[in-house]
Amino acid sequence: MRHYDLCVIGSGPAGQKAAIQAAKLGKSVCIIERREVVGGASVNTGTIPSKALREAILSFCGRQSAMPREADLRAARDATFAGIMQSCHNVIKAEIDIVRGHLGSNGVDLLTGTASFRDATTVDIRGAHASQAVTADKFAITVGTVPAKSPSIPFDDHEIITSDEIHRLHQLPRTMIVVGGGVIGTEYASMLSVLGVRVTLLEGRNRLLDFVDAEVIEALQYHLRQGGMTLRLGEKVVRIAKVEPPRGARSLNSELVEATLESGKTLRADCLLYAVGRQGATADLNLAAAGLEADERGRIPVNEFFQTKVPHIYACGDVIGFPALASTSMEQGRLAACHMFGEPREMIADLLPYGIYAVPEISMVGWTEERLTKEGIPYEAGIAQYKEIARGQLVGDDIGMLKLLIHQESHAILGVHAIGTGATELIHIGQAVMALRGTAEYFVNTVFNYPTLAECYKVAALNGLNKLKNL
Amino acid sequence: MRHYDLCVIGSGPAGQKAAIQAAKLGKSVCIIERREVVGGASVNTGTIPSKALREAILSFCGRQSAMPREADLRAARDATFAGIMQSCHNVIKAEIDIVRGHLGSNGVDLLTGTASFRDATTVDIRGAHASQAVTADKFAITVGTVPAKSPSIPFDDHEIITSDEIHRLHQLPRTMIVVGGGVIGTEYASMLSVLGVRVTLLEGRNRLLDFVDAEVIEALQYHLRQGGMTLRLGEKVVRIAKVEPPRGARSLNSELVEATLESGKTLRADCLLYAVGRQGATADLNLAAAGLEADERGRIPVNEFFQTKVPHIYACGDVIGFPALASTSMEQGRLAACHMFGEPREMIADLLPYGIYAVPEISMVGWTEERLTKEGIPYEAGIAQYKEIARGQLVGDDIGMLKLLIHQESHAILGVHAIGTGATELIHIGQAVMALRGTAEYFVNTVFNYPTLAECYKVAALNGLNKLKNL
Repeated sequence: MRHYDLCVIGSGPAGQKAAIQAAKLGKSVCIIERREVVGGASVNTGTIPSKALREAILSFCGRQSAMPREADLRAARDATFAGIMQSCHNVIKAEIDIVRGHLGSNGVDLLTGTASFRDATTVDIRGAHASQAVTADKFAITVGTVPAKSPSIPFDDHEIITSDEIHRLHQLPRTMIVVGGGVIGTEYASMLSVLGVRVTLLEGRNRLLDFVDAEVIEALQYHLRQGGMTLRLGEKVVRIAKVEPPRGARSLNSELVEATLESGKTLRADCLLYAVGRQGATADLNLAAAGLEADERGRIPVNEFFQTKVPHIYACGDVIGFPALASTSMEQGRLAACHMFGEPREMIADLLPYGIYAVPEISMVGWTEERLTKEGIPYEAGIAQYKEIARGQLVGDDIGMLKLLIHQESHAILGVHAIGTGATELIHIGQAVMALRGTAEYFVNTVFNYPTLAECYKVAALNGLNKLKNL
Repeated sequence: MRHYDLCVIGSGPAGQKAAIQAAKLGKSVCIIERREVVGGASVNTGTIPSKALREAILSFCGRQSAMPREADLRAARDATFAGIMQSCHNVIKAEIDIVRGHLGSNGVDLLTGTASFRDATTVDIRGAHASQAVTADKFAITVGTVPAKSPSIPFDDHEIITSDEIHRLHQLPRTMIVVGGGVIGTEYASMLSVLGVRVTLLEGRNRLLDFVDAEVIEALQYHLRQGGMTLRLGEKVVRIAKVEPPRGARSLNSELVEATLESGKTLRADCLLYAVGRQGATADLNLAAAGLEADERGRIPVNEFFQTKVPHIYACGDVIGFPALASTSMEQGRLAACHMFGEPREMIADLLPYGIYAVPEISMVGWTEERLTKEGIPYEAGIAQYKEIARGQLVGDDIGMLKLLIHQESHAILGVHAIGTGATELIHIGQAVMALRGTAEYFVNTVFNYPTLAECYKVAALNGLNKLKNL
């Protein structure tokens, strides 16, 4: 039986970075992946595919900006959906090659099969053709999550699907119901709407994305509706079933999907995307044999060093729960590997940026107005509209907005919230200023390239400081 | 005669910001503009038109990325040039409206005509239909620059042109000679090349853009040549003339432009763009009457507060020379207005970013390797290629590169150099970290949105620090 210093289970962002970090420290490392391809949900079904789809759609619509023009929409409706999907698959394939290359060049052994613990130091790997087992001094469980599937819903991989199946659609539905207004539901709903699909987005709460700034969400919801999407907020689905289309109705499929809401409404569409949460992919791991157990959502509890209650077994990435972002998962993987082999490494900064790749794009770092108000921290908001600055005009973004939350006395930056073209990139300027303890005056006194979206920071800082001056 | 607290001469970026800043301080302000439209060269012939042209071209080519694909190029060659130009004019018109709106809402009087000093406190304004004069306590000369025109060159506004005329071209030339490999020459040459024009770019020095990092320029020159451009470096033009096309030759015009080089070569093309420097637009100002004089290139000397040798007359923007960027000109205008009315204001940060909107885009902040080496400052370079990171794959940018220059001992960031998609935006993250005295460790310990180009900072920092560890 082959022995390793570290055995990593799962080749997503957390697993990759843990494996490569340990390899860079001179350790022998294997990574077990149950798929035929590496990369985990990030590369194969989640992060990268959804962003590739978004890029392909926006590129197809001829621009990178917030919302396509009417002419772009018409072009998109005539698009061969297959072409867009092919473009996604090309990106996915390239990413898989890159991940495989990184693992290979760092001497990480890649073992294919489903891992399950035999005991706390041995893992059995059942492959399609053969089985094997390895022992290791340390383990990193980085198996990620799978979409939560309610047993009462008749998933069929074609008309009633989760986000795992969306990239396998062969044709663009004319109408779609998206259940769940979290990140995944909102991203796909907005992309499909841009492609001309008539989307109804259902969310049990009274707003989408409840961790995001309310003003940003107001703008998002307004523009999604302007773009033709139907939002049904505060609505709960009680039944999902397939029904025969009414006689003579135009439908792509022989059947329609029908969703019945608690409020008594009935909705019908060609396709339904169920995007209500994900759960840890720990079912096959036989955690009990290692002395571990997952919680009711399949997640594994860890301490600040990403150790489970069995100290030589670490867990990181989405499987440990919040925030479940590829960016943080990578960092967790690196930190876990450093900790297990005694390499000093600073902990993750608490200033995590959030990126939501809807159309339009959203990003944030730091606190929201709601939170600051609740905590009794006095602040002023400085706002810049993209359309006020030259670059906003150039990219034709009438929606974009950047908001700085400025401490009333110290002028420290407490939060940055952005919606519009390039928001996920733009946020990092504010993040650096927050982390390095700059104030709103930094933005006032800084010269930015002209014309860039970064000028929004200057406009927003001047706006906020002017309001404070007039207090 | 109407009297003002401040009379601003020229409505470009410096003039606008000086006027609005003074107005915000409660002063009476007029701004004199000799064109029928406001905005100066920035809005009408320079910064904004060139960026609008770039956006229109890239949008036309179906993507925002570094270099268009072959299919995009074919589409572009079939383009109606008029459509692209119309898109530019729409942006220019929108910008003019915005500038006019800002001036109006701040109560700044806009006077149209050519200004000339009668004495140090009186300016005559000769308009198309009437003349007037105003007096003021303070003046700001923000007249900008015009292209330098050698009298030996037979400019005709159609075939032998400066950058002022390029937006008036009615058809796309098949072939073009660009004289001058500075910012203006390089930007237009690269844009026209993307549109399928066969461009020859001539530069007297042995490289383009001599203030930019050598490795970045090497990449730029390589990709310009790959894109079909001919670079003639270290060549000097001694004669430019129009000639009859050879009998039977296909030419858009009845005449061709011929450039004779000092080395004896002869080049011919449909069109020649002369982009060798600009000079202060001070000829009509009658500076002597105010006790002032311009230097041989039309520029006005000022002190650190932007005062000329006549203390109540200030000058800012391109007319005072380096760096002659819209971004710095705006800041100079604000600072001059604050100084003249005793409002405290911090001086401009010395960390100016530079943005070059060529295709591909280039940006930098801080020092170059050449300069650090000359000054004997020990550094290491950390490099990230866009193609190594997921966002680079998504946008299909195989060219992009970001380089961090890291102090060998303190790990302070000494410079950031970038080429590729979004470089002019991306640079501001490094600028903030430099200004707020962060080190390379900031990038290592920070979580960036995934997938974004900002991840290049982390990859580059890890690369640089690894090299330092192995010293």
